[in-house]
Amino acid sequence: MPPPARGFPKLDGMTDEQKTDERKTIAFVVYPGLTPLDLVGPLQVLTALGQLDPRYRTVVVGATKDTVGTDTPLRIAPSHTFDEVPSPFAVLVPGGTVPTLHAMADERLLAWLRTAAEGAELVTSVCAGSLVLGAAGLLDGRQATTHWMFRDLLTGLGATPVARRWVEDGPVITAAGVSAGIDLALHLAERLAGRPVATAIQFVIEYDPEPPQGALDWANQPYGDLKPLREHTLREGLAANPALLAKLLAHA
Amino acid sequence: MPPPARGFPKLDGMTDEQKTDERKTIAFVVYPGLTPLDLVGPLQVLTALGQLDPRYRTVVVGATKDTVGTDTPLRIAPSHTFDEVPSPFAVLVPGGTVPTLHAMADERLLAWLRTAAEGAELVTSVCAGSLVLGAAGLLDGRQATTHWMFRDLLTGLGATPVARRWVEDGPVITAAGVSAGIDLALHLAERLAGRPVATAIQFVIEYDPEPPQGALDWANQPYGDLKPLREHTLREGLAANPALLAKLLAHA
Repeated sequence: MPPPARGFPKLDGMTDEQKTDERKTIAFVVYPGLTPLDLVGPLQVLTALGQLDPRYRTVVVGATKDTVGTDTPLRIAPSHTFDEVPSPFAVLVPGGTVPTLHAMADERLLAWLRTAAEGAELVTSVCAGSLVLGAAGLLDGRQATTHWMFRDLLTGLGATPVARRWVEDGPVITAAGVSAGIDLALHLAERLAGRPVATAIQFVIEYDPEPPQGALDWANQPYGDLKPLREHTLREGLAANPALLAKLLAHA
Repeated sequence: MPPPARGFPKLDGMTDEQKTDERKTIAFVVYPGLTPLDLVGPLQVLTALGQLDPRYRTVVVGATKDTVGTDTPLRIAPSHTFDEVPSPFAVLVPGGTVPTLHAMADERLLAWLRTAAEGAELVTSVCAGSLVLGAAGLLDGRQATTHWMFRDLLTGLGATPVARRWVEDGPVITAAGVSAGIDLALHLAERLAGRPVATAIQFVIEYDPEPPQGALDWANQPYGDLKPLREHTLREGLAANPALLAKLLAHA
């Protein structure tokens, strides 16, 4: 990314010391095996927000600071442990496939998420990250979305599934699959700092998409009947968690 | 990312053993301080390609496998060292700001890149990654692009700058800033495996962009005069490399 922060007016004159103490923390959750684009799209956008508007900063949190695998050959490491960031201003949970189903039964992650969500002004997710929010009880009675392949499953977590790029229900904002995290984050940037800042970030990441194959044609989606595919994935990811498996299979 | 590979027909019947021996390797370069979205966007797309078409695999290469910082709080680690991947089928170099200028003078990285490019069928970059290709002498006489803020600098590296989302000049394909890497990678997926596979990947990453602030309005780009901003960044990033600095400043 080119040097965005330098030429752009800072919104106030806080010193670095003050910023560390007073900035609102946007915490991105890491767990082993996640889909890194779910995380990195919005992280890039909201880190740029912190450069343009020093009221905000991003951190990446995990159970430890150890380097963990993803669903690509890239390995990643958090900047902070869960314990170091007990009260973030905002939380974002990225998704994935079987590892995300494992995360739905990770009591340490869920406990941190519940505590963090209590004090947070924004609780957000990308892709199947909303299933983790749901497992923590944070989607109960809310409208939400997730990756199109998993959308029906939200019903089993007490939510009403909505087919939109992102769905805002009070403090809970969930995005659709993988790349939708970029759109979610630009929406959050506008909500937190106004449209000129969001537009500046859009220029910084040169987000002027030209999908070479055009828009998605939902009438011709691949993979056919999703039911057996979903059931297979759920049985693999939730084998150790029969109660949750049963709840989700009822809607799979 | 949901379970894409399972429901989708594999393109051949190779065993895992054969795949390891025979797959064409797409190598993503890591260096300290890079912009992770430049890397992760195309990595996610082309890792999905490897799941749908086992002729291909992705790796992440660096000088060592140590975890390094990025221009966000996320730290990342390669899967392989440069030495372990001497002859990739394709190379992708991501960009960044001052750390990318440092990478332009990293003789170890440049030496690997020159050797790899000799045998590679595709030499690609995202954002300021094309400046690293240029520093390795790989853009000489070619059309190329980069982040819009840096585009003029390509002239100093022997290339002809082009204002497009991605620019294909024989084996060398360069993408515009940051998020353009996703479009580049979907283009590569179609070139390597055909449109149905590329479209399936587009569904997997649910790439149906809805930029909340609309399309970029280039007539109203922020940051004003780019000249002083660029010169400041070049002087900071290339202080130890006066010959390259002078060459680029002539076009900054």
